Amino acid sequence: MPSYTAPMRDIQFVLHELLKVEDALKEIPAHAELDADTLNSVLEEGARFASEVIQPLNQSGDEEGCTYVGDGVVHAPKGFKEAYAQYVEGGWPALSCDTEYGGQGLPHFVNNAFYEMLNSANQAWTMYPGLTHGAYEALHAHGTPQQKQLYLPKLTSGEWTGTMCLTEPHCGSDLGILKAKAEPVGDGSYLISGTKIFISSGEHDLAENIIHLVLARLPGAPEGTKGISLFIVPKFLPDASGKPGERNPVKCGSIEHKMGIHGNATCVINLDGAKGWLVGEENRGLNAMFVMMNGARLGVGMQSLGLAEVALQNSLIYAKDRVQFRAAKGPVNRDKPADPIIVHADVRRMLFTQKAYVEAGRAFSYWLALNIDKELSHPDEAVRKESADLVALLTPIVKAFVSDNTFECTNHALQCFGGHGFIKEWGMEQFVRDARINLIYEGTNAIQSLDLLARKVLADGGAKLKKFGKLIQAFVVENQGHAGMQEFLEPLMDIGDKVNKLTGEIGAKAQQNQEEVTAAAVPYLRVVGHLVYSYFWAQMARIALDNQGDDFYKAKLATARFYFAKLLPETAGYIRQARAGSEVVMGLPAELF
Amino acid sequence: MPSYTAPMRDIQFVLHELLKVEDALKEIPAHAELDADTLNSVLEEGARFASEVIQPLNQSGDEEGCTYVGDGVVHAPKGFKEAYAQYVEGGWPALSCDTEYGGQGLPHFVNNAFYEMLNSANQAWTMYPGLTHGAYEALHAHGTPQQKQLYLPKLTSGEWTGTMCLTEPHCGSDLGILKAKAEPVGDGSYLISGTKIFISSGEHDLAENIIHLVLARLPGAPEGTKGISLFIVPKFLPDASGKPGERNPVKCGSIEHKMGIHGNATCVINLDGAKGWLVGEENRGLNAMFVMMNGARLGVGMQSLGLAEVALQNSLIYAKDRVQFRAAKGPVNRDKPADPIIVHADVRRMLFTQKAYVEAGRAFSYWLALNIDKELSHPDEAVRKESADLVALLTPIVKAFVSDNTFECTNHALQCFGGHGFIKEWGMEQFVRDARINLIYEGTNAIQSLDLLARKVLADGGAKLKKFGKLIQAFVVENQGHAGMQEFLEPLMDIGDKVNKLTGEIGAKAQQNQEEVTAAAVPYLRVVGHLVYSYFWAQMARIALDNQGDDFYKAKLATARFYFAKLLPETAGYIRQARAGSEVVMGLPAELF
Repeated sequence: MPSYTAPMRDIQFVLHELLKVEDALKEIPAHAELDADTLNSVLEEGARFASEVIQPLNQSGDEEGCTYVGDGVVHAPKGFKEAYAQYVEGGWPALSCDTEYGGQGLPHFVNNAFYEMLNSANQAWTMYPGLTHGAYEALHAHGTPQQKQLYLPKLTSGEWTGTMCLTEPHCGSDLGILKAKAEPVGDGSYLISGTKIFISSGEHDLAENIIHLVLARLPGAPEGTKGISLFIVPKFLPDASGKPGERNPVKCGSIEHKMGIHGNATCVINLDGAKGWLVGEENRGLNAMFVMMNGARLGVGMQSLGLAEVALQNSLIYAKDRVQFRAAKGPVNRDKPADPIIVHADVRRMLFTQKAYVEAGRAFSYWLALNIDKELSHPDEAVRKESADLVALLTPIVKAFVSDNTFECTNHALQCFGGHGFIKEWGMEQFVRDARINLIYEGTNAIQSLDLLARKVLADGGAKLKKFGKLIQAFVVENQGHAGMQEFLEPLMDIGDKVNKLTGEIGAKAQQNQEEVTAAAVPYLRVVGHLVYSYFWAQMARIALDNQGDDFYKAKLATARFYFAKLLPETAGYIRQARAGSEVVMGLPAELF
Repeated sequence: MPSYTAPMRDIQFVLHELLKVEDALKEIPAHAELDADTLNSVLEEGARFASEVIQPLNQSGDEEGCTYVGDGVVHAPKGFKEAYAQYVEGGWPALSCDTEYGGQGLPHFVNNAFYEMLNSANQAWTMYPGLTHGAYEALHAHGTPQQKQLYLPKLTSGEWTGTMCLTEPHCGSDLGILKAKAEPVGDGSYLISGTKIFISSGEHDLAENIIHLVLARLPGAPEGTKGISLFIVPKFLPDASGKPGERNPVKCGSIEHKMGIHGNATCVINLDGAKGWLVGEENRGLNAMFVMMNGARLGVGMQSLGLAEVALQNSLIYAKDRVQFRAAKGPVNRDKPADPIIVHADVRRMLFTQKAYVEAGRAFSYWLALNIDKELSHPDEAVRKESADLVALLTPIVKAFVSDNTFECTNHALQCFGGHGFIKEWGMEQFVRDARINLIYEGTNAIQSLDLLARKVLADGGAKLKKFGKLIQAFVVENQGHAGMQEFLEPLMDIGDKVNKLTGEIGAKAQQNQEEVTAAAVPYLRVVGHLVYSYFWAQMARIALDNQGDDFYKAKLATARFYFAKLLPETAGYIRQARAGSEVVMGLPAELF
C-alpha cells in the first residue's frame, strides 16, 4: 500500500523562500496580519488530516467504488462519509471562504497548498469538497444577496456540497448546443428539465443537501453559448432558515464505471421539472459558470500536482529499497546480492523527471494562486489587473501542462516498480488511472491549448504574454551579474526568444487561416509551459546557489540542472511540430482517413 | 462496445506491395510454393476467427477477470475455454510450426500477421496461445529429440499450453540472482523447488496440460547468469505416449490483480520438488531461454501493434460520428447542430499520429518477421547471417519503440472520446490499461534500450547498425532521381546522419565512462526507432507516389507527410537528451533524492 508524507519542507520553501508570501500579504490588508507560523501550523494540521484521515481510504475507495443503491441514492465507499464529517468538524471547508459567511478568510494559496495535500492523499474523495468550493465561488461572485445568505454559510461549513452540471449526452466541450430547459414559474423560480451526465460528486451520502449549479436555456433564448443561463437547483428545497425540506426532482439516474477516481460518484443527473433559481443575468450563465470553471481548472492543476507528488514519493522509496543489478561503476552495496535500483541512470532519469515537474509545478501553481489573492484583494487596481491578466493567461497552463506532466510522471513512477507497478496492491497503477481524467475534464487539454493560444495570447496581440515576459526580463536583469546563474539564464532567455518568435509566426499565419491556430495550439502550449517552468527553475536555482552548504539546496540545484539538460530540450521537437502548419493535418478529406 | 475489423487492405499492402513476400519466399525452398492467394485466404480466415470468436470476449474478459478457485485451480473468464477449443479445432496453433511435429510450416511472418489480429481482438486471451508458441520455439531450438517428440506435437496442436517461468519475488530484470533450485534425481530428471511470480498463462482451464519452462540453479552452479539452467516442468507428467498422468507439484499459489490484461492469469507458481528435465546444456539456460524471450519481444511488438490498430479504428469511427463545434473554416454539416469532430485539427493530429505509428509499425514488424524466416530457412548462409544481425539489432526496437508508441496511441484514441473515453463501457480505457504492461514485461523498455545501445550497437563497433544503414543508403540511391521523393529522402538521410553522429559520440564517451551509455540509452532508442520508421515511411511514400489516382494511396501519402512533419521532429528533443551526458543524472548522491 502506498504511503504519503506531506512535503512540508518543499511547501515551505515555495511559500517562504521563493514566493515570500508574508511580504506579499503585507500589501493586502485582508491578509496583512497573517504570519508564517500561523500559515505553517494550518498546513501542518492539514497535512495530518490528509495523511491520517483520507489517505488510508484511497486504495479501498478505488477497490470498492461508489454504489448506486437505486431510486437516485448513491453511497460513497466505506469511510468516506466519516472522513467528510471530520473534515466539516475541523472547519476545513471554510479555510479560504469569506468571513461574512462563516469562512476563515485565509488566502487562496493556502487553500491550494492544502488541496495539493488532499489530492496526494485521495483525489476521488477530495472531489467532493473540491466541487463544493467551486460552487461556493460561483455563488459568491454571481449570487444575489439572498442567495448568498441562504447558500454560502452551508457551503462554507460543508454541511451542504455542490456540483457543476454542464455536460449533456450530446455536448461536452461544445456547450453551445446544450438542451436543458428552464421554464419560469412566475414567482422568481424556474422549472428545469433535461439530462446531465458526467456530474462529479453528483449524488452521495456525505452531506444533508447537494446544491447543483445547472446550465439551461430559457424559453426563446438565443442559440449557442449566448442563450445559456445558470441556475441553483438544490437536492432538497431549503426554507428561508436554510432547513432542507421537499425533495426536488433532480435525481441521479445511474453512475458511471470509470478507469479511475472510482471513489467519486460520476452521475447521470435527471432534472424532471426541478425547481431552480437564476444565478446572475439571463443568458449570461456561461459567464457566471466560468468563475467555477476557472477555479476548477486550477483545481485540476492541484489534483495533478498532488498525484505526481505521491507517486514520486513512493517510487523513490521503492528505488532506494529494491535491489537489482550492480551499479555501472561497480557494487555500492556489497552485503546485498545487488544494488538498489536508484544507482541506475534510467531509474534516476525517471525519478528526476518526477522531481523536476513536481517542484516546478508546485512553485508555479502556488504563485498562480497567490496572484488570485492579489487579483481579488489587492488594494491597488493596477496590481489587481496585472494579476488578473497573469491568472487568465496561465490558467490553461496550470490545467493542461501540469496534468500532462503528471500523466508522464505517474507512469514513470509505475515503471520504477517494474512488473510490480502493474499490480493493484502496490497502488501505483491507481495513480496512473486517476491521473488520466485530469487530461480530459474541465475542458480537454486541447481545449486548454486553444484557450491559451487563440483567446489568451493572440486575441490581445500578445499583451498578456508580454506581461509575463516582463517578469522574466526583470529576473534576468537582476541576476545577470551572478556568475553561477549564467547556465540557467541562457536557456531561459533562449526559450523566451523562441516563444516570442513562434507566437509571432503563428499570429501572422493566423491572419490568413484560422486553422493555423488550431493545428499549432497543442505543441504551442507545451512550449509556453516550459517557458514558465524554466522561469521557476531559474528562480529556485538562484536560491539554491545562495545556500549551497545544505543538502536540501544541493538536491534543488541538481534538479534544476536536470530540468534544463533533460526536460526543456523536448521543446526543440514541439517547436518544429507547432511550425509544421495546418495543411499537413487538414489536407486529407475526412472520408479518406 | 468497441468493434474490430481486420485491416486486410493494409496488411496486403505491406505483404505484397511493400515487402513483396512472394518474391522473397521464392528464394526459400521451404516456402517457395506459397502464393498470394493462399496467404490471403489464410489471413482472411484468421481475421474471421479474431473478430468473430475472441473479440466479443475482450470486454467481458476484462470485467470478469480470472478466478482463483482454490487449491491451485484457476478459471479463465467465461467463453475463453470454448474459444480456445475452436482455436485448436481450427488448427491455428500449428500455423508456423514445423511440419515434422504436425505444423503447417507457414512462414513466421504469416503467424505474426495473424497475431496482430488476435491481439487487436483480445490481448489477454491471445497470451495463452502466445506463450505456448514461445515454449514451442524454445524446445524446438534446444530440446533433445526425445523431448521434441514428446512435447512439440502437443504444443503444435494446442492440446497443451506453455509458460516461461523466469521472475522470482526478488528478481525480475536481474535474473543473475535467481534462487530456484534443481536437484538431480539420478535418472535424468530433476526436482525443482522455488517460487516464480508474474507467470502469464501460468494456470487455467483451457488445456489438459501446461508445460512450464523454468529457470533454476543446479547444485554448485556458478553465481550469476552463468549458473542458470532451463527445465521442462509439466503440470501433469506425461507417459511416453504423451498421456498426462501424475500431477506434478508445480502449482499456482495465487493470481495477481492487475491494471489490465485481466483475462490472462498472472500466477504465482510454487515449485515444491516438481519433476523436470533439463533443456539444452547445464548452466546455459539463459541462452536457451533467449530464443523464447526474443520471440516474446517480437510478440510484445505484435501485441502493441494490434492494440494500436483497434484503438485507432474505434477512435476514427467516433471522430466521424460525434458532432461537437463547427469547423474552423465554417460548417461542413449544416443539417446537424455541429460538425463531426474529425474536422478539428487536434483530433486529426491524434488520428494521424495513430495511423502513422500503426502503419509504420506494421511495415517494420512484418519485415522483421520476414527476416526471421530468412534467418531460419534461407539457403544462403550470408543471407541468414545478414538477417540474423538485423533481427538481433532491431528486436529491442520492435519491443520498446512499438509499445511506447502504442501507449501514446491508445491514449490519443481515448482522448478522442473526451469524457466517454474514461468510461469503461466504451472500451477505450481498457486498451490503455492493457497496453501499459507492454512497456514492462519481457524486459522493460529501459532494458531494451540498453540491449540496443550497449549490446547490439556498441559491442560490435556499430557493425550491425551499419548493415541496416546500407539498406537505407541503397534505397536513397535507388530513389534519388525521383523528384517527388526528395521531401522524404532528405529527412531520412538527415536522421541517418544524426544517428551515426550520436552513436559515435556516445561510443567515444563510453570509453571513459560506462554510465554515458546507461544515461543515453532510452532517448537513443527513440531516435533509432524513428530512423527505422522514416525508412519504412519513405518506402511507403514511394509506392503511394506511384499510385496516386487511388484513395488508399492518397491517405498513405498524407500519412507519410504527417509522419515526417509532426512525429519525426521529436527526435530533436531526444537527441539533445541523449547528448546531455551522465553527470546530470548520476551526480546527486542517492540519499539526497
